[in-house]
Amino acid sequence: MKEVIAIIRPNKANATKESLAVLGFPSLHACKVVGRGKQKGILGEVSFPVSPELEKQEGGMKYVPKRMISLMVDDQDVSLVVAVITKINRTGQIGDGRIFVCPVENVVRIRTGEKGKTAI
Amino acid sequence: MKEVIAIIRPNKANATKESLAVLGFPSLHACKVVGRGKQKGILGEVSFPVSPELEKQEGGMKYVPKRMISLMVDDQDVSLVVAVITKINRTGQIGDGRIFVCPVENVVRIRTGEKGKTAI
Amino acid sequence: MKEVIAIIRPNKANATKESLAVLGFPSLHACKVVGRGKQKGILGEVSFPVSPELEKQEGGMKYVPKRMISLMVDDQDVSLVVAVITKINRTGQIGDGRIFVCPVENVVRIRTGEKGKTAI
Repeated sequence: MKEVIAIIRPNKANATKESLAVLGFPSLHACKVVGRGKQKGILGEVSFPVSPELEKQEGGMKYVPKRMISLMVDDQDVSLVVAVITKINRTGQIGDGRIFVCPVENVVRIRTGEKGKTAI
Repeated sequence: MKEVIAIIRPNKANATKESLAVLGFPSLHACKVVGRGKQKGILGEVSFPVSPELEKQEGGMKYVPKRMISLMVDDQDVSLVVAVITKINRTGQIGDGRIFVCPVENVVRIRTGEKGKTAI
Repeated sequence: MKEVIAIIRPNKANATKESLAVLGFPSLHACKVVGRGKQKGILGEVSFPVSPELEKQEGGMKYVPKRMISLMVDDQDVSLVVAVITKINRTGQIGDGRIFVCPVENVVRIRTGEKGKTAI
């Protein structure tokens, strides 16, 4: 099993989740992050205001609000999931985000106690 | 060493942390996430209002506020920690959450420079 | 490739990011977490108020607002990145935080489709 972590634009999060659900990957968790890539922040990309608290804490450096989406997938589904996330999120503009694939050793569904692939 | 990540109900976070602390696992970090499992969101489960911002960003899909708890544990303690988290969080209702076990190669305590198991 | 995750004091986040950027590691994502180490929470460390919502949800246990920073680095850069984060964040006081090194199997830059080390 792998964890596929995507750091994407907030306005792409919904389409990404819908696409993954349609393809059979409804289970995920998500949270708000700030991030930047090699371009060291992108002026003018932010379509909604960064909170004053965030601006203060981050100081003079430019960080862009992003959404992190994490889902657990069977090894054989990794390339499909990565391809779907790429397809939905590629605008060709700086700031499209990145995808990380990390190893996961076990998954447990708390309600049933199921473990491994059946708990994904 | 392993990272044990639990995605649980917000109202179970405190009891989970207390139980882990009592058993010798006080060190952890936590943050707010939204998530859903195979049931694609659970109407009526949310006992506190989802922020309008979140509702807007997530569109028409149902995501439920959850708490993510992450702690680093020695390999020999993984099964105990997973069992405790399961025990505290199992209500038998949809939405009990899931636990992920991931490999961790090193842990460093910044204050002392300790590494590995002693830094857990 | 490795993911280096640092759980640090919020007031050290900016200096940490600036130092990493100067050394050639500008790409990262960050989010707000609460955490504690073996000391089970540190009274009086919090220099800004914890939100009432957080206080209520966490109950009587002491958790300290922290910043989580995550960056992906080539294997050969892990020790440098860990040393830099340690240098910037070590005050010698309880609450300096910890660093975790985790395996990452692949990184994809969504805009270009680049994979592996060149996508870091």
